[in-house]
Amino acid sequence: MTSPVLPSSGVLSPLFVRLEPGFWGDRVRLDNEVIIPHCLEWMEKEGWVGNFRGELPRRGREFSDSEIYKLLEAMAWAGHPGFEELAGFVVRAQEPDGYLNTRWSKARYTDLEWGHELYCYGHLLQAGVARLRTHGPDEFTEAVLRAADHVCEVFMEGTRTDGHPCLEMALVELYRSTGAERYLELARRLVERRGLPALGTIHFGPAYFQDDIPVRRARVLRGHAVRALYLASGAVDVAVETGDADLLATVEAQWERTVARRTHLTGGMGSRHADEAFGDDFELPPDRAYAETCAGIASIMLSHRLLLATGRARYADLAERTMYNVLATAVALDGHSFFYSNPLQVRVAAPAADGMVSHAAAASLRSAWFDVSCCPSNISRTLAALPAYLATTDAGGVRVHHYTPAEIRGAGMALRVETGYPWSGGVRVRVLEGGEGAVSLRVPAWAGGAGYSVHRAAPEAGPRSHAGPDAGPHDAGPHDAGSRRSGPHDAAGGARGLAGAGYLTLPGPWRPGDEISLDLPMAPRWTRPDHRADALRGTVAVERGPLVYCAESPGDRPPLAEIAVRQAPPAEHEAGGVVELEVEAELLTSKPDAWPYMSSPASAPGESTPLRLIPYHRWGNRGPATMRIWLPAAD
Amino acid sequence: MTSPVLPSSGVLSPLFVRLEPGFWGDRVRLDNEVIIPHCLEWMEKEGWVGNFRGELPRRGREFSDSEIYKLLEAMAWAGHPGFEELAGFVVRAQEPDGYLNTRWSKARYTDLEWGHELYCYGHLLQAGVARLRTHGPDEFTEAVLRAADHVCEVFMEGTRTDGHPCLEMALVELYRSTGAERYLELARRLVERRGLPALGTIHFGPAYFQDDIPVRRARVLRGHAVRALYLASGAVDVAVETGDADLLATVEAQWERTVARRTHLTGGMGSRHADEAFGDDFELPPDRAYAETCAGIASIMLSHRLLLATGRARYADLAERTMYNVLATAVALDGHSFFYSNPLQVRVAAPAADGMVSHAAAASLRSAWFDVSCCPSNISRTLAALPAYLATTDAGGVRVHHYTPAEIRGAGMALRVETGYPWSGGVRVRVLEGGEGAVSLRVPAWAGGAGYSVHRAAPEAGPRSHAGPDAGPHDAGPHDAGSRRSGPHDAAGGARGLAGAGYLTLPGPWRPGDEISLDLPMAPRWTRPDHRADALRGTVAVERGPLVYCAESPGDRPPLAEIAVRQAPPAEHEAGGVVELEVEAELLTSKPDAWPYMSSPASAPGESTPLRLIPYHRWGNRGPATMRIWLPAAD
Repeated sequence: MTSPVLPSSGVLSPLFVRLEPGFWGDRVRLDNEVIIPHCLEWMEKEGWVGNFRGELPRRGREFSDSEIYKLLEAMAWAGHPGFEELAGFVVRAQEPDGYLNTRWSKARYTDLEWGHELYCYGHLLQAGVARLRTHGPDEFTEAVLRAADHVCEVFMEGTRTDGHPCLEMALVELYRSTGAERYLELARRLVERRGLPALGTIHFGPAYFQDDIPVRRARVLRGHAVRALYLASGAVDVAVETGDADLLATVEAQWERTVARRTHLTGGMGSRHADEAFGDDFELPPDRAYAETCAGIASIMLSHRLLLATGRARYADLAERTMYNVLATAVALDGHSFFYSNPLQVRVAAPAADGMVSHAAAASLRSAWFDVSCCPSNISRTLAALPAYLATTDAGGVRVHHYTPAEIRGAGMALRVETGYPWSGGVRVRVLEGGEGAVSLRVPAWAGGAGYSVHRAAPEAGPRSHAGPDAGPHDAGPHDAGSRRSGPHDAAGGARGLAGAGYLTLPGPWRPGDEISLDLPMAPRWTRPDHRADALRGTVAVERGPLVYCAESPGDRPPLAEIAVRQAPPAEHEAGGVVELEVEAELLTSKPDAWPYMSSPASAPGESTPLRLIPYHRWGNRGPATMRIWLPAAD
Repeated sequence: MTSPVLPSSGVLSPLFVRLEPGFWGDRVRLDNEVIIPHCLEWMEKEGWVGNFRGELPRRGREFSDSEIYKLLEAMAWAGHPGFEELAGFVVRAQEPDGYLNTRWSKARYTDLEWGHELYCYGHLLQAGVARLRTHGPDEFTEAVLRAADHVCEVFMEGTRTDGHPCLEMALVELYRSTGAERYLELARRLVERRGLPALGTIHFGPAYFQDDIPVRRARVLRGHAVRALYLASGAVDVAVETGDADLLATVEAQWERTVARRTHLTGGMGSRHADEAFGDDFELPPDRAYAETCAGIASIMLSHRLLLATGRARYADLAERTMYNVLATAVALDGHSFFYSNPLQVRVAAPAADGMVSHAAAASLRSAWFDVSCCPSNISRTLAALPAYLATTDAGGVRVHHYTPAEIRGAGMALRVETGYPWSGGVRVRVLEGGEGAVSLRVPAWAGGAGYSVHRAAPEAGPRSHAGPDAGPHDAGPHDAGSRRSGPHDAAGGARGLAGAGYLTLPGPWRPGDEISLDLPMAPRWTRPDHRADALRGTVAVERGPLVYCAESPGDRPPLAEIAVRQAPPAEHEAGGVVELEVEAELLTSKPDAWPYMSSPASAPGESTPLRLIPYHRWGNRGPATMRIWLPAAD
């Protein structure tokens, strides 16, 4: 079994599915064929690989080693042939006592606040885990273990930790792969140590790197979003492996409050550019949303861990939202450029910076590379491991959390998922190899009342005739205030009915040829913000299925500052397999430049115009444009 | 005549008035008695003065010398007795060739992008000008001239400039004080050189320091707000002294567009924390408004220069707004702490950081000092010079732009201004010494239709009987779509009438005992934002006179995230000479934490509650509180 996260306990265990062409299968192939080579080329060009070969002067930022490790992780999951050569450079750069860092070897651990040494080890260990699980031990994994042992020796005692969490979850995963308890113990200590405090004073204050209070006492995620989410992920890993129900419940509560108050509609997290931080409750500006790609990925990692630990559908709901609206957005359709930040509104149709290294904060452009280039390799490793995020097994059978064409093997069964999701809502699960376990399908929170039907290939007596939904303990509750009930049996002994949000659990046994059809309602939805989200007051957004839509205006024609939409049901248009939407808008007119605060409104409603909306993840692929997800509402 | 800005041409010449107790007189006295000593104490404590005495290691940021110069400028205007001792340290630190900088003497001009060497000279020269105009030549002003000559020698030829504009306007002012044309010529070259480009590549891109395009080609202020406003101020100075009407018109157009699209209701400028920059058009978040105190001061400097150059009331209008709502806000009532940033909304009632050095970006707290402490000394020098910002003289007579108790001498006349402004709208101007010239009084843009009356002490025949308003060329236009007309003559031969926004010009001659009364309408006003200001949609604000009001909620009770106000006329309450307002609000109720984007609103209007509003400049003086200027409107 292969996955970046393999808990030894918890409710669910991940499966590694075989993807077929479809929304995610296409992107995983893009990763293998384009993104991985693209990253390798840039890391060579920028000298970050050369740093491991001892080329001087050393190039790149203090954390550039981690990019090579993330790329190695991606290559391991993808089975990329370039792994061994690149890993070889790393192995040969290691010092005899296990220390490994191209920036700090002459000043080891002298700047834990900003040096990122343990952070780099974290990514090294994750690459080692991926190699162990896809290939088995080799010189690279031996080097990784030496590095891990070195870190244990230096950091097991004392009060210090790293400015950037990451090592915690990597150590737990290495423990899961090796059984060596010292790794788990160091991870546990690093989680507990933080906030006592464990780090020195910095410009942004201790909350920036979650050193303001201990993890156990925090009520919400705060400070630098990627740091906060990596730390929370590590805390879940420690909680699961040590059976620490308190710690798990604490992180669940932090997740809950963060999702309710500090998360953008896209699932993006982080509202501040200056310190890449969450910001205060309900500080959710669409234009200055930072919503760093790496924070989206880290959020998927955290939600996935909580899903495995608890089996609650809400975690898969947020992961899905973030996968479709942050992860898929962050990479261009051709795989050669990336968003670092994923704002929900862009006011200026700025030209692209093709082929150039961008400053990370140039938020509104996809760029080929960045001076701080954490995002491309993070996208790459996440897509490469994506087959491990979609389905799980447990004592009851198999659960499918995310729908994309794939073959799933687990609990002794083989299932084929056929779907045009996210463009259409129909999902067909065909049983290729049967088994006794249940098959559970997630009904997203927005899809309550989904129709389903079960077609049994060969009806028989006994338990088969009772086949029908069985609400699991973590379902979100019955649909339409009535209790969920199975529908009428069909001619072939199957059943049909309506499923509420949560998991639709269909008990086995299953035989080859059996089929389950789920029909998720895909009508576009008008979505309104909480009144406390000040920056969104008076606006509405459109969602359809798991996708958030946006208006993209090439050259800002029509001007997106001058529209207000009417909330009639949007029309659907299919264009090249993609569903676009159309709504009716009023074009407002503004007076000439004048003081913009006045006793009566300066704008007057003007002519009507149809406004095309496209899936947010597809914006920025057609040249300079303005964009907005939240659309001013015409009363 | 004494003023920080003394143009040799232009429409108006500044007067230095004698302030009496009142809104600004009290603050100028606070500066003299509290703020100047406070700054001196902190600059000694932090070692920034010691740097000039050669104490090692050198302390403070690369631009800390400029703080001493700004304080010297303040001391010069204020006639502070500590000037000579402090200036002596500076004089003795100068190198034989005129070079003077405690940070870069061993690496002169090696980092013009970030080194701030010319910026520091700029503030040195401004201090020298203040000393020349208030005292005359001495060893300090000689040192200043040596430094200026050194800079001319090094930078007159070539293409280089400084990352932070400031030297431009200082050179022009030194030219005005000395007549040495090389200073004006270097200023002109520095203004023209910028944007060709003149500086190297930085992280934030060239617009950060206005090196993206030449000043003459820019349509709007952009990038780092203080840098942009200092540069524009220098460009006006150059334009005025070289008779460059084109350049002046260009800066006027930049001001116009910036005020229409990139200025907060308070007059604050700058919407981004990361690079302290303006941000895009209509990017005006109340919560993350940066609105740096120094940018507010720089905006007053620019508007003042444009006022002197053109005589247009709009510039005095914005200066007044910024004086009352940024400058007055930035300093605590006791003069011992300061805002660096002046946001229009604060969501978290954070405790104060009394007596500690704060990071500049800790926006929501007044602090005693900052690691980047540009604001306190900038406030100090601005308050010390404030008597030069209030009234002007020109061929026609005297204009009064800002109302506060004062004695004004100009055009051979002496006038006493008596007023309770900004709390009450009545302004009485008494003629102490008569003259032939006109007296012009500014009627702010919000005060169109102000009543006035003229009482002549001893009516006589001839021109006196025709006394009445005479609309100047820069008035904003007639009131109520009718042409402005004088009112009926009163018993003593005076006149009364209504004055439109702009300047109410009352021709002389004037005799001792004559009186003019102006009655500015002080009813509270509901103000609505332009529909393009996305972050303000659905909100309203209350203004009264020149003051912007805010809700301040100690401990966030009532919770300012849960209110919506009804737009009935606010009630007024006087409390200790301060006018507070009360409006009616609905208290909304929120559901427990859940995903905050939904198909229907989660909040329900709840009970009504009165909501107290206080002048924005007074907030943050009563302990930890939340605050908001823009209030959600109850439909």
